[in-house]
Formats: sequence, C-alpha cells, structure tokens
Amino acid sequence: MSKPKVFEKPIGVKDYLPHAVTKLRHIEREVLGCMQRWGYEQIMTPTMEYYDTVGVASSTSDQKLFKLLNNRGTTLVLRSDMTAPIARVVSSLLQEAPFPLRLSYHSNVFRAIEEEAGREAEFFQTGVELVGDPTAEADAEVVALAIASLKAAGVDRFKIAIGHVGFLNGLFEETLNGDIETQEELKACLLGRDYVGYRERLRKLELSEPLLHELESILRLRGGKEICEQALHLSSNQTAQASIRHLCEVWEVLKAYGVCEDVLIDLTMIGDFSYYTGMTFEGYAADLGFPVVSGGRYDNLLKQFGRPAPATGFALKTTRILELVGDEAGNEPKRVLIGYDANSREGALAAAQRYREQGDSVVTERVEDWSDWEPGKSGETLPVIYKGAAYSVVIPFNSGNAKGGASS
Amino acid sequence: MSKPKVFEKPIGVKDYLPHAVTKLRHIEREVLGCMQRWGYEQIMTPTMEYYDTVGVASSTSDQKLFKLLNNRGTTLVLRSDMTAPIARVVSSLLQEAPFPLRLSYHSNVFRAIEEEAGREAEFFQTGVELVGDPTAEADAEVVALAIASLKAAGVDRFKIAIGHVGFLNGLFEETLNGDIETQEELKACLLGRDYVGYRERLRKLELSEPLLHELESILRLRGGKEICEQALHLSSNQTAQASIRHLCEVWEVLKAYGVCEDVLIDLTMIGDFSYYTGMTFEGYAADLGFPVVSGGRYDNLLKQFGRPAPATGFALKTTRILELVGDEAGNEPKRVLIGYDANSREGALAAAQRYREQGDSVVTERVEDWSDWEPGKSGETLPVIYKGAAYSVVIPFNSGNAKGGASS
Repeated sequence: MSKPKVFEKPIGVKDYLPHAVTKLRHIEREVLGCMQRWGYEQIMTPTMEYYDTVGVASSTSDQKLFKLLNNRGTTLVLRSDMTAPIARVVSSLLQEAPFPLRLSYHSNVFRAIEEEAGREAEFFQTGVELVGDPTAEADAEVVALAIASLKAAGVDRFKIAIGHVGFLNGLFEETLNGDIETQEELKACLLGRDYVGYRERLRKLELSEPLLHELESILRLRGGKEICEQALHLSSNQTAQASIRHLCEVWEVLKAYGVCEDVLIDLTMIGDFSYYTGMTFEGYAADLGFPVVSGGRYDNLLKQFGRPAPATGFALKTTRILELVGDEAGNEPKRVLIGYDANSREGALAAAQRYREQGDSVVTERVEDWSDWEPGKSGETLPVIYKGAAYSVVIPFNSGNAKGGASS
Repeated sequence: MSKPKVFEKPIGVKDYLPHAVTKLRHIEREVLGCMQRWGYEQIMTPTMEYYDTVGVASSTSDQKLFKLLNNRGTTLVLRSDMTAPIARVVSSLLQEAPFPLRLSYHSNVFRAIEEEAGREAEFFQTGVELVGDPTAEADAEVVALAIASLKAAGVDRFKIAIGHVGFLNGLFEETLNGDIETQEELKACLLGRDYVGYRERLRKLELSEPLLHELESILRLRGGKEICEQALHLSSNQTAQASIRHLCEVWEVLKAYGVCEDVLIDLTMIGDFSYYTGMTFEGYAADLGFPVVSGGRYDNLLKQFGRPAPATGFALKTTRILELVGDEAGNEPKRVLIGYDANSREGALAAAQRYREQGDSVVTERVEDWSDWEPGKSGETLPVIYKGAAYSVVIPFNSGNAKGGASS
C-alpha cells in the first residue's frame, strides 16, 4: 500500500468546482421545489447510522456498506440510501404524525466500491417517500411526481418503465415449483437485462414446451396497457394476476395525470432493492444505458422499525442527471470589479456595497500600482478577463484620477 | 456494549424535521447568496478524504477525527473542516487558476466526540477562503464578509473579536525565554478563557514584578483601536509589534467598510486552529457563550499541498445559528388539499396541476367515503387541520356533488 500524494482524494469521490456546483444547486432547488408543490416536506438525517439498525435494514449488500467504529466500539455505517433512515425517523421522531406522510430529501449517499469499477463511492440522490398509503393512487402519484421531477431537473427525453415484483414471483412460483435457486438465477439475469443469459438458463431447465414458451414470452412483455391484458392470460397464479390488476389500476391513474406517453409497462423489470414488495419503476434518459430514477413500493420495511406501514417512493440519481443536463442553469449575477487605492478606499467599498445590494457579485481589490492594473484601461472591450474571471463592469477608484467612475 | 434499538441514531448526530430544514435551508441560501455577492464562488468536496493528506493537515486533533478504512486498506477520514480540503483543491484541480481565489462552501463536518460531552459529531459550517492575498485588506474583507454573513443569516446582535497570534507569540518569546511548555499552558488558559487559571499559572513562574505585570496586563487588552496603542507600548518584541501594526491596518480598512461598531480588538484571543499564522477572529452572539463564527489567516497550510500561498477565511457555525434565529424563515407556500373519487379523478388532478403551476403546495387524496371526509364540511373555518397538516384551501371533487368546487 503506497501512501497517497498530498493532492489526491480517495478513489470514487469527487470535487465539484463552481461551475458544477451551480448546476447541481440548480437541479437540487428545482427538484425540491417541485416536490414541495406536490405536498412533500423536506427532512435531513445524519450521515452516520448504526449498522445494527439502518445498516441492516438498508437494501445495500453488506460488503458495499462503509463501516466505521465510534468511540464506544459500536459499528456505524455511512448511509447508503435515504429510505431506511427515513423509515427510522417515521417510527421515532414522527411516531405521532398521522399517515399519509409525504417526505422529501436531497442527500449524499455512500457505497463502498471495487476501485476497478469506476463507480462512485459518494453521490447525490433527490427523492421522496410516501408513507402510509397502500393504494394504486399512491403508486401513481410517485410515478407522476418522478416524471415532474425529471422535467424540473431539465431532463427532457426519458421513459419510465413500471413493473411489479409480484408478477415474476407469482409466475416463477407457479412454474418452477419452489426451486428458489433457479428463481434467483433467472431474476439476476433480468435485473442485469441479460436476456440471452435468461434464455440459456431456461433451456437448461428441461421444462415442458408450453412452460418454456410461457417463461420466454415474458421477455416480450414491454409496452402499453395492452401488455397487462397479455400477462393476465399468461399465468393463472393468483399473486401474478393480482399484481397485473394493480398495475392496470396504476395505469388508469397515470392516464388521469396525463403522463402515459412517458410510461411503459415492463414486466421483466425487477427493482434493484431487495425490500420492494409491489410496483417498481425505473426511468431511463434517451441514449443512456443507466437509470436516472428508480423507485417502488416497500410495504415491509417500516415494521422493522416498529411502525408497520405501507410505503412507496423513489430516488433521482442526481449526480448522473448533473452529467446529463446542459449549462443553462439559472441566473448568474453580473460581475463587478472595483479597484482602489488607499485614499479612495471608503468610496470604493461604499460603491461595492451599493452593487451588492442590487444583487451583483462584486470583487474589490486594492491596487498598488495603477500602471500594472490591466482592466478598465482605455479601449478595452467589456467583459474583461482579469485573474481568470470575467467582469462586465470594471470601476477604478484611483485618487490620482479624481474620483474614478464606471467603465461599463 | 448493548445493541442499539431500531429507532436509535448514533450519539451526537441529528435528524432535522421539515420545520428545522426550512430554517436551515433559508440560512444556507441567504448566507451563500451574500458570499456570492462578495465575489465568492461555491465549491464542494467529498465527505471522505485520505488521512495522510487532508486528515494530517487539518487542525483537528487526531483522536477527534472519524477514521475508516477503504477496500484497499488505506485510512480515510470524514472531513473535520473545509479549509484543508479546499487547500487540496486549490493545489490540484485549481492549480492553474490565478490568485486571489475566492471560494465559499456550505458543508457538514465531523468530529469524533466524547459522548458525555453532549457535543455534536456532525454539524454544518458555511464559510469562505480567500487564497493568495497576504494584505490587511484581505483580512478585513473576510471580517467584513463574516459580519455581512451573520446579518444575512438573521443574527442581529453580535460582536466580532479580532486578535493576532503573533502578538502573544512575540510577547511570550520575549518574556518566557523559550519555555515552550509554559507558553502552551498559558495559551491553553487563554483559549479556554480561563483568566483565573492564567493568573495562577503566571504567579507560579516567579517572574520579576514588571514582567508579571506585563503578562497580566494583556487580560485588559480588549476594546477599540486604543488597545493597539497600549499594546505597542507593552512589548518591544518585533513580532509582537508587527502584529499590532497589522491589526491597526485591518482596523483602518474595517472603518472604511463601516463595520467597526461590530468589532473589538481582543489581544488575548487565540484562534482554536493550530494552523493560524496571523490575524484571527471570533464572533459572539448576544447572551451566548459560544462563537457563531471563527476565522483567521493561515499562510503555511497551502504549502503542505504543494502550492505555497497566503490565505485567510472563516466558517460560520451554521448549526448553532439555526438554534439562535427565529422562525420568520421565508415564504411557506399556500397549502391546498384536493379530495376526489374515482369518477372525478381527472378533473381533480388537473386542478392540482393548476395550483402547482402557480407555486402552491397541493396534496391530493382519493376519498372512498365522503361521510368520513372531514375537511371542507360546511361551516368549517379555514385553515383546516387534516391528518396533522394545515390547509388554507380545501377542494372536494365528489362526483355525487356534480363537479366539486373550492371552499376557500
């Protein structure tokens, strides 16, 4: 193990320079504002949680949790998502708050990574949890809000795929007769969108031709509401059928929201969180292979914290969205540069104050030698670049020059 | 060691419920906005840093650093302040950016704590670093910006005490002849504002009467600019005298900023960071014993990261300020509740959309049984409380009632 160089930061984490921060802050503000308009109130939780509580309840695999010890020798984790911490808060500080609870967050989360993978060890998520409402209306609300949030973030072209963990569970239960290992292998293929692997695994099972056909045909179950009709005929398993009927209901509500053109049903989809119990969804931006949002229903998590309740929610992958959206982000203030000498200091600083009060960004600089001072020299076109920054107003307060004045 | 209960969070960390988040976000926005108007650009750095780089360079004592291991076995720390991480960025990613650099941040930082102490293990700081400017103008600029930032945060009554580490260093060097241990003990008394302990320690030293008097009299060196005059006569040590002359210059610039009434000179003040090399300052809010801002000059830190440069800056103790300021924070949106049944869904959701577009916060709820639905019943006064939240507009979309309408 070689010692890190002084200029190095750990693998998988990032510095955000001002330009990136402006964009990230813009997305954060717009998305949280959107969530607020949908009645979601923001909460914040600590970076560190107990391993034995939130760490164990989180859907992150153990080896991907960052662990540390506190002074008492208790194992802590850096939060790997916000769903488990919020479940803890709903069951403790918010114990008396009536359901449904609508909560939002913008937060950094952590995953211990294999350094070869080029993945991120710390990244931002912006999301909501809707706790205490078991209905299809609630599932549709979070999908519709995810769509509104992506648009607020500046993502214009995307599709939301919705599925239901009960469909595959029911179908596999019916067809594979409790062969859990095979079920997990097939689900792993679908989670990784490895359809070739899925087919190969099926063919090794020596299933009857109708069964093989049934399990292969789910790969085509992607599309509009007609997919639900097809799926209803595919399996007579009750869990699978109930799941499909629930998705139909969700679809009806999404139609009322007027967002169906952004949504498709994908019954091969498995949410990547082990605690999902119902509808799950993922959002894909045009031309990009990774999801920019994921979410779903998790009706069993809250009871681990002592307040059983149905819940649904989603998280935007804010760090990925940052790389996706353009640079239009918001109103940069006008930049003003004021140079002054000791005899003009008071007037110069008062002028700076006036510009600041009208919202401009003002840099003041004491000038020792005016012949060295480049900006504002006669004939120079604005904006001028001075020490790496662009200024649209340059004002020299030079007591040799009487009072100084704006050259804008 | 007992296992934590599921509802528990680690000692020394906090959950922020919506009301507190609204306040915290308001302070964050106002203070960062103020810093931007002074020409400071925001940056963000990772939560984790290498122990051997930023950890070692930080002013936090080793046992107060949160340490963890990455997958490679390298020791990481959770950042304990933002000054060292920013020094790293200035020397790496911003290596080519010309000085002076004006950078701001709002960030959580971490300190491993003795659990008995009731101190915080994670808290927020909002601050600036002005890198590459060695002048008294720069020192005064950060003091004046600290004052503007406190006002932006909503702190109305406070005093900034400014001092200079060179004064005590020079004075002790002159009077205590290299007895480093005694110097450190005396400084520790001053840092803890333990003036009784300081006097007791002095009396044990068997100093000559004039020397004893000299070292005792510094306890009275608190006040306006006249303090500098007194201090100039107290010691003939060159370091001490240069420090006082520098403070006089800073005072002159602060006068030009028009902020001297918020400032006092306190030559007994020692910044709590070991890396300070020049002027230091602390801000105290009325009636509170703890500082709400601290800062100072640190001209030797940057060279540890390979880009030697003078620098000065400060950090607001944002978490403390949160407890200090009132509840006026910002414009809460109007809250609207829309109830609907399945037949009125489309109209209800469209109405929700219209309210959201005008910036209101809208909760929608499907109502199964209108006789159970309390809000909007005839004769009820607005705002109504429904499931723990107050609404100023309640709209039932009840297909039994024709179209439904606003009861606001």
